Formats: sequence, structure tokens, C-alpha cells
Amino acid sequence: MNEERHTISLLVDNEPGVLSRIAGLFSGRGFNIESLCVAETTDPSASRITLVTIGNQMVIEQIKKQLNKLVNVIKVHDLTGTNFVDRGMALVKVKAKPEHRAEILRLVDIFRCKVIDVSSTHYILEVTGTQEKLGALLKLLNPMGIKEIARTGSIALSRNRK
Amino acid sequence: MNEERHTISLLVDNEPGVLSRIAGLFSGRGFNIESLCVAETTDPSASRITLVTIGNQMVIEQIKKQLNKLVNVIKVHDLTGTNFVDRGMALVKVKAKPEHRAEILRLVDIFRCKVIDVSSTHYILEVTGTQEKLGALLKLLNPMGIKEIARTGSIALSRNRK
Repeated sequence: MNEERHTISLLVDNEPGVLSRIAGLFSGRGFNIESLCVAETTDPSASRITLVTIGNQMVIEQIKKQLNKLVNVIKVHDLTGTNFVDRGMALVKVKAKPEHRAEILRLVDIFRCKVIDVSSTHYILEVTGTQEKLGALLKLLNPMGIKEIARTGSIALSRNRK
Repeated sequence: MNEERHTISLLVDNEPGVLSRIAGLFSGRGFNIESLCVAETTDPSASRITLVTIGNQMVIEQIKKQLNKLVNVIKVHDLTGTNFVDRGMALVKVKAKPEHRAEILRLVDIFRCKVIDVSSTHYILEVTGTQEKLGALLKLLNPMGIKEIARTGSIALSRNRK
């Protein structure tokens, strides 16, 4: 069966131990977590976890079943196959040698980045987009010398009215 | 002692079980994780975890000591108190009643959001910034009717050359 990338959105109780149980479920069964974000929602008693995992249909079904069984997991929503938008963000510290600055700023324009810090030796860029877009920018910046990256995982919302 | 919000950046081996051990360390000791992001780095063998936690100086020192002791944790960097930039991202699905559209688009302009989806009933906005900025926008959008939010935790980079 084909391995596929799935974006799963979880609404969970905002209680200690929930994240550990979810991460433990994945590592204990050898399931892979490609990226994960957890943050508060507008309701202080709930957090939202967005995670990206890879597996065939059978593995994904098993993951969803196990997640649904966990205490403190309120809702499991597999967005893959539905109509949804997903975005990630990266902060990239890139060397700003004088001979590279024009090219870096061209990329900033094309990829609609924001330059959020400048020093005599580097720029820090903020970029958002699909993971493919982030990957494409990183590939183009690589020859200038990437010093450091911090990256969020993907977050996602359904396009359906609800 | 004063409770303070700390942004901690961890470089870890990209292996199953690491996230679960880190989350378990926090929940087992009653330490609080406010937000957490984990994603790949340019080195496929390593992942970066950025987490935000709240505690007094003694608790934070203990957290850092315990994190440093964990297998598969390569580097622990507490950015708070140093010169750093941090940003988060949110996707916000907001009701787009005809009488509210002009005001929503004014906020989009002011907060430099991107409108990434439009339907007859809602907009989906993408916004980046400090958690304070994201909070301010959400507060202003709230009266129009926020249907759903997905939010990353903060990610951060040191401003120092390195």
C-alpha cells in the first residue's frame, strides 16, 4: 500500500501529560511524526495539536483509532483528502555577503518574505507557505550560506464552512 | 521568585521517542509547556524543538538541567535574556458578513495578514508576529465571529552572529 503524508488536527484538553501520551503512542508503535505544533486555542481549557505523519492507509487508520481512545483527546480530524489549507513558517538566518545581498533581496520579493533582522553579517528572514515553498526557498538560499533555521510544523484549517 | 516566560530551543536526534521523553519530563514534574513546535532541520539526522515554558528561575534551571541529561538531546539553548527574535503564525477562519468585510480587510492591511481563502461566508487569514501581536488581532477579530483557529507555537533565532 502507498505511504501517504497525513495532516491530523487534534483538539485536546489543556492538561499536563496529554502531549507526552500522544508522542508516546507514536514512538511506542514505531509510527513516525514528521512535524508537530501545539498551542492554545481561544478556549483556555483546550489546546490544538497539528501533526504530520506518514504511513499507508492501514497505519493511518490505526493511528486515528488509537488517538481517539486516549483520555483528554476531544476530537481527531484527519484533513488529508478533504478540502483544506496548510501553512508552515520558517525563520532563516542567512549570511549577507555584499555580493549576495541583491540576490537575497530578490528572493525575499519573490517568496514574499519579511526581513526581520539585519546585521553587518547576516539577515534573518521570515517566510510562510506550504512545506514545498519553504523547501524551495531554502534550496535557493543554501549557496549563500544558511547559518541557522527554526521551523514550525504545518498548521491547517478546513476550507468547509462550519 | 518571579515567574517568567522562557523560550528554549533544543537540537535533538531525529529519532522516535525523543519528543515523548521531553514531554514526559515536563508532565512528570508538573512543569508547564505553553507551546511547542518540532520540525526537521537542514540536517536530516536532527530536529529542532522550540518550546515556551513558564516558571521561576529555580524551576527553569531544573528544567534545563534535566533536558541536558536526556539521551538524544544534543543542545539546550535558553534564549530568554539573550538577544533573539521570535515569531508565531496563526490561521484564522473568520465570518465574512457583508457589513464586516471592509473592517476585516482594514485589519488585514494593518496587521500585514494574507487572505489565503475566501468563500461566500468566511475568510481564512494567515498572520505572523509575536504572540502579543497575534493576540491583539484575535481580540479585534472576535466580534466578527472567529469560527476556527490553528496556531503554531513560537519559533526563535538568536540575533548574535554565529
